[in-house]
Amino acid sequence: MKFKICFYIIIFQIILSGTLLSQSESRYTIVIHGGAGYIPTDISSETKEAYLNSLDEALNIGKKILESGGTSLEAVEQVIRFFEDNSFFNAGKGAVFTSEGTHELDASIMNGKDLSCGAVAGVKIIKHPISLARLIMEKTPHVLFAGEGADKLGLKFGVDTVDNHYFDVESRYKQWKSKHKEKVKGTVGCVAIDQYGNIAAGTSTGGLTDKWAGRVGDSPLVNAGTYANNKNCGVSCTGQGELFIRHTVAFNISALMDYKGLSLQEAADEVINSLPEGSGGVIAVDKDGNYVFAFNTTSMLRGVADSEGKFETAIWK
Amino acid sequence: MKFKICFYIIIFQIILSGTLLSQSESRYTIVIHGGAGYIPTDISSETKEAYLNSLDEALNIGKKILESGGTSLEAVEQVIRFFEDNSFFNAGKGAVFTSEGTHELDASIMNGKDLSCGAVAGVKIIKHPISLARLIMEKTPHVLFAGEGADKLGLKFGVDTVDNHYFDVESRYKQWKSKHKEKVKGTVGCVAIDQYGNIAAGTSTGGLTDKWAGRVGDSPLVNAGTYANNKNCGVSCTGQGELFIRHTVAFNISALMDYKGLSLQEAADEVINSLPEGSGGVIAVDKDGNYVFAFNTTSMLRGVADSEGKFETAIWK
Repeated sequence: MKFKICFYIIIFQIILSGTLLSQSESRYTIVIHGGAGYIPTDISSETKEAYLNSLDEALNIGKKILESGGTSLEAVEQVIRFFEDNSFFNAGKGAVFTSEGTHELDASIMNGKDLSCGAVAGVKIIKHPISLARLIMEKTPHVLFAGEGADKLGLKFGVDTVDNHYFDVESRYKQWKSKHKEKVKGTVGCVAIDQYGNIAAGTSTGGLTDKWAGRVGDSPLVNAGTYANNKNCGVSCTGQGELFIRHTVAFNISALMDYKGLSLQEAADEVINSLPEGSGGVIAVDKDGNYVFAFNTTSMLRGVADSEGKFETAIWK
Repeated sequence: MKFKICFYIIIFQIILSGTLLSQSESRYTIVIHGGAGYIPTDISSETKEAYLNSLDEALNIGKKILESGGTSLEAVEQVIRFFEDNSFFNAGKGAVFTSEGTHELDASIMNGKDLSCGAVAGVKIIKHPISLARLIMEKTPHVLFAGEGADKLGLKFGVDTVDNHYFDVESRYKQWKSKHKEKVKGTVGCVAIDQYGNIAAGTSTGGLTDKWAGRVGDSPLVNAGTYANNKNCGVSCTGQGELFIRHTVAFNISALMDYKGLSLQEAADEVINSLPEGSGGVIAVDKDGNYVFAFNTTSMLRGVADSEGKFETAIWK
């Protein structure tokens, strides 16, 4: 009898530990953004569908990587590559025009596991700036390359390069040529925690419409536009880059959690609420898989998916 | 009799308040650095004297500005201009050579009063990168310009420009051409608080000897290499730039004071001690005029002066 009870207890423990193990093993969360701004609520249903479908597609790319045991770093890179190929978003193909009628692209990526990071600023011929940023992180002792040197490094690494006109999109050209030069300042970003507990974050952008050649915003700047550490959280920002630099937005959220014990939501709210209305927003994930969308604009193209089955995309508040 | 006593009391109070006012009005502190590293202790007495004289001269420039009522911003800019003109230091004239045999200069400046900041990365023809950084801060809505766009902006502003070879110095050329390519990674910096209670910080560098074209370190990155806010402190960093970016060194010192209530010394020690031995160091000043030199190398060219008459320069620990 005693033996039988012992046997059942052991079997029960094996099943329980197996369940817990598979639960903890398969846990992940991913958040994405396609820029914070002021998308009118009366856009056509076709445009709305197109935005949401693109967000769905991006989210699915990341989700599949994470649920099949891929890393958060891989998910972040692949999601952002998708955005860089999609002309709806101000990153890669579809990037805004500079004052000189060209495109200058910025991107950064960070691995919360070891604080390694890579970034490019002002590249003109790199098809996927986020992938060059990852190569810089993994294959060089450096963090940031800017301008011509960054393009040359891309050639050296053999990444896909294109003529600068490849990034041209008619709608962006019209925005740039319009009398009022609609100040598009979109960005794309992704933050994820994988089943190994590693957090990664990345951001990519074409910057501001009609920006002066050489102007660099927060997106390629680790600490300002992108940040990740496994101890606290990962963050990707979108908005008025200069404000995000001055306020060290991405790192500051992590610092508030670390030094003041705030939750991810409290920390993100504190930082975003301290910025002027309309500055932009952040997406973030903490070490427990909690996520946050915090923005002080009327819209932020965004989405979240996790291992519990959540899968949501949205445009407005 | 009563009238006489009253009269003397009033006179005494006037003198006392005048003294206190002039004391508080004239209070300032300034710290400078010319790079952290491993200067051998057995250098010739001529070289040692030359270093110390240069530091004295730099410190005097800042001291005179501050004691005559100038701003910390002006002191920081003028001290760094002096360093940029002095071929002993790795900034401006005397900057190290890149792998392509050229010079690419980085600088940043920040005003703690309003968190305004300006920076340049990878400029090739700007004689005084720190002054272009200040113009970007004061005359544009932007923070950072990189590469060719930054040089063009300098031309637009009419700042002093030079041929890239102007920055050549024989000793740097020899370092670059030597078999072991001595990894010079000097930087110059200045932090000051003026009699109005405003803190400013600035940093300027030629980067790493033999660096790849386009590589950007921490010096032009506000939050990593330079930071200032009047609430806590101002900081200028020198060392292995990539580490300083990953650890958000400059802003982190301010965050530790702000969120954990650490003193400037405690915050600077905590950050520098968390970095590997030999990474570099920081100079910093807090809102009460306290100052810190924290470094984990054997030498840091440095100096401090204040309104109490302190005037010290040093090389080794």
